Amino acid sequence: MFELLKTDAQTKARLGRLTTKHGVVDTPVFMSVGTQGSVKAIDPRELIEMGTQIILGNTYHLNIRPGMEIIKAAGGLHNFINWQKPILTDSGGFQVFSLAKIRKVKTHGVEFRSHLDGSKLFLGPKESMEIQRILGSDVAMVFDECPAHDAPARDQRNAVERTIRWAKECREQPRAEGQLVFGICQGGSNPELREQCAKALVAMEFDGYAIGGVSVGEPEPEMMKAVELAEPHLPAHKARYAMGLGTPAQMVELVARGVDMFDCVLPTRVARNGTAFTRKGQYGLKGGAYKADFRPIEEGCECFACKHFTRAYLRHLLNVNEIVGLRMVSLHNTHMYVKLMEDVRATLAAGTFADFYREFIANFVPSKKILSEREVAKLER
Amino acid sequence: MFELLKTDAQTKARLGRLTTKHGVVDTPVFMSVGTQGSVKAIDPRELIEMGTQIILGNTYHLNIRPGMEIIKAAGGLHNFINWQKPILTDSGGFQVFSLAKIRKVKTHGVEFRSHLDGSKLFLGPKESMEIQRILGSDVAMVFDECPAHDAPARDQRNAVERTIRWAKECREQPRAEGQLVFGICQGGSNPELREQCAKALVAMEFDGYAIGGVSVGEPEPEMMKAVELAEPHLPAHKARYAMGLGTPAQMVELVARGVDMFDCVLPTRVARNGTAFTRKGQYGLKGGAYKADFRPIEEGCECFACKHFTRAYLRHLLNVNEIVGLRMVSLHNTHMYVKLMEDVRATLAAGTFADFYREFIANFVPSKKILSEREVAKLER
Repeated sequence: MFELLKTDAQTKARLGRLTTKHGVVDTPVFMSVGTQGSVKAIDPRELIEMGTQIILGNTYHLNIRPGMEIIKAAGGLHNFINWQKPILTDSGGFQVFSLAKIRKVKTHGVEFRSHLDGSKLFLGPKESMEIQRILGSDVAMVFDECPAHDAPARDQRNAVERTIRWAKECREQPRAEGQLVFGICQGGSNPELREQCAKALVAMEFDGYAIGGVSVGEPEPEMMKAVELAEPHLPAHKARYAMGLGTPAQMVELVARGVDMFDCVLPTRVARNGTAFTRKGQYGLKGGAYKADFRPIEEGCECFACKHFTRAYLRHLLNVNEIVGLRMVSLHNTHMYVKLMEDVRATLAAGTFADFYREFIANFVPSKKILSEREVAKLER
Repeated sequence: MFELLKTDAQTKARLGRLTTKHGVVDTPVFMSVGTQGSVKAIDPRELIEMGTQIILGNTYHLNIRPGMEIIKAAGGLHNFINWQKPILTDSGGFQVFSLAKIRKVKTHGVEFRSHLDGSKLFLGPKESMEIQRILGSDVAMVFDECPAHDAPARDQRNAVERTIRWAKECREQPRAEGQLVFGICQGGSNPELREQCAKALVAMEFDGYAIGGVSVGEPEPEMMKAVELAEPHLPAHKARYAMGLGTPAQMVELVARGVDMFDCVLPTRVARNGTAFTRKGQYGLKGGAYKADFRPIEEGCECFACKHFTRAYLRHLLNVNEIVGLRMVSLHNTHMYVKLMEDVRATLAAGTFADFYREFIANFVPSKKILSEREVAKLER
């Protein structure tokens, strides 16, 4: 299902192809986040026009609303949301540990209260895989335990042990026809734990491997380190997915460290506050500097927003709370993420990725504000 | 500029064609409301796909934000919002009287405080026409005084006198190249005042005539009466526009009473609360009855939302506050209004309008809730 087409000569970057039931995904790839069955403010036609190959759905959220009875009646998530390209579903593990109120970790899962109405729910490997089977996603994720980045060593160790045990349980569950299942490597920034977790998962022969426990509030160097600790223990012929990441610069940095797949709510989240991403960084479109700026959000950009509207107009729409404003910035930012990975693939194919990488990182200036937005963003994914 | 193509044999309905600088508008027509330079939640491509011929902009709102300096720098409203079809702009008279805080009516206009920041502003015939000249709309409206429907007789009389005097002032102002100007007939439900106002305006030879002082909280029969009182005094060879109306049934009723043009915020406003219009009335999509209803919003509808999504999915999106939900219902409702007027024109051309009219009114059941929404809607137009 995953073909490694090429490995970069100067970095660990990889060009690949993941074949799923609903089509082929070229990697490295950015996957747009459709937590509740919709990429925020963007419709499927717009997603396809910008070259989106795969989107995410979320087990925890979709199980609460609309619930599996309705998804089952609709014939699965693809039909329910009318998206006939690949879907990856997260297992709900992350949300149970970050979002749910009052949780009790048990042997076969977690008892918790819904973040919405406080009702008592239970989610474990068996339940999560069953939900993902009903959703019919192309890639299902195992149910893991994701501790906070500053959790004590003992909690990190327990989380790794539990994650391995639950991964095994997930591995044994029935799947939807043609569904791939990825393991999730935990272990924080502890080299032994990352190695232990990666090796145990690899022994179970999953269809791909995610690096979890990143984008949980840790500083950027620690995030890079976590990936660097896990990566050498993952097999070259399987896809690697860094969960919940990141800024454009972080994605390019992680491609260079051997990561193939990314997902992040940042492009749509910051768009709703009026922040636009460009190849040089990001800027707040609401600012007075743009009130008579009749250039597109990013010069040379081919997205629907940049082809039709000016900064001055979008700034006005954002400032008077018109929905078309946040729609267009969401669209531009998501397009920017998707195209960035297209460029990464093109330079990998051409053998020029190392130059592209150096140049991109030198030009892209991430703001402190964006890095702190990751804190809030993690609650939304 | 207005050609009367056909008058219905059994009703007062008219088939016509209004030629403007940015193109031809077939009448009867529904004009979508883009108060602040954007039809709420719908982008220009979607508007064009559904057959939109003309949209509205608002002098009062656009003058406050983004302000005329920016619109002028953009080269007018069409360029600023990237809409190259006709635009009609309201004069701001309605907003000054319904929205602004603390106003002082003077000889040449109204001194008032901005509803946003309380800053002191002045709007009168001269200012309104100058703003509309800068906006470069295809149809400008005169600056009128619109009293409440239950205003005392003396206020109604004063409003008519002032409206006539201000209309004359507007008539004398310079216009944008090719800009049409419509007069606005006031007079509430008083036959003498309606006649006096209509005749005075007609003597000034405007390019078209609006019936104002409707959709200001009056009961429906009073609204119909106001139109019936004004209509006989308006010349057949000029377009007639009923301002701020209405429900689908009200529009069809008013077509039968000789009205050619309509605008209303209802289709997008109620959409944001999850209410969908159909040929039979309206329903709240958020209701539990639709949770596993996999039909489109309206069977047989050809809009983007109905071609792609089910009630069950849109209900879910509305209930979890996903923007694509309210986008799609806004789109469907606006499409329904636009297509309803297309059907009206087709039946007028075929000579079958009277049958269509009877059948539509018999089938369409307006809800009390929708009629009361008009109360809130008037604040938004």
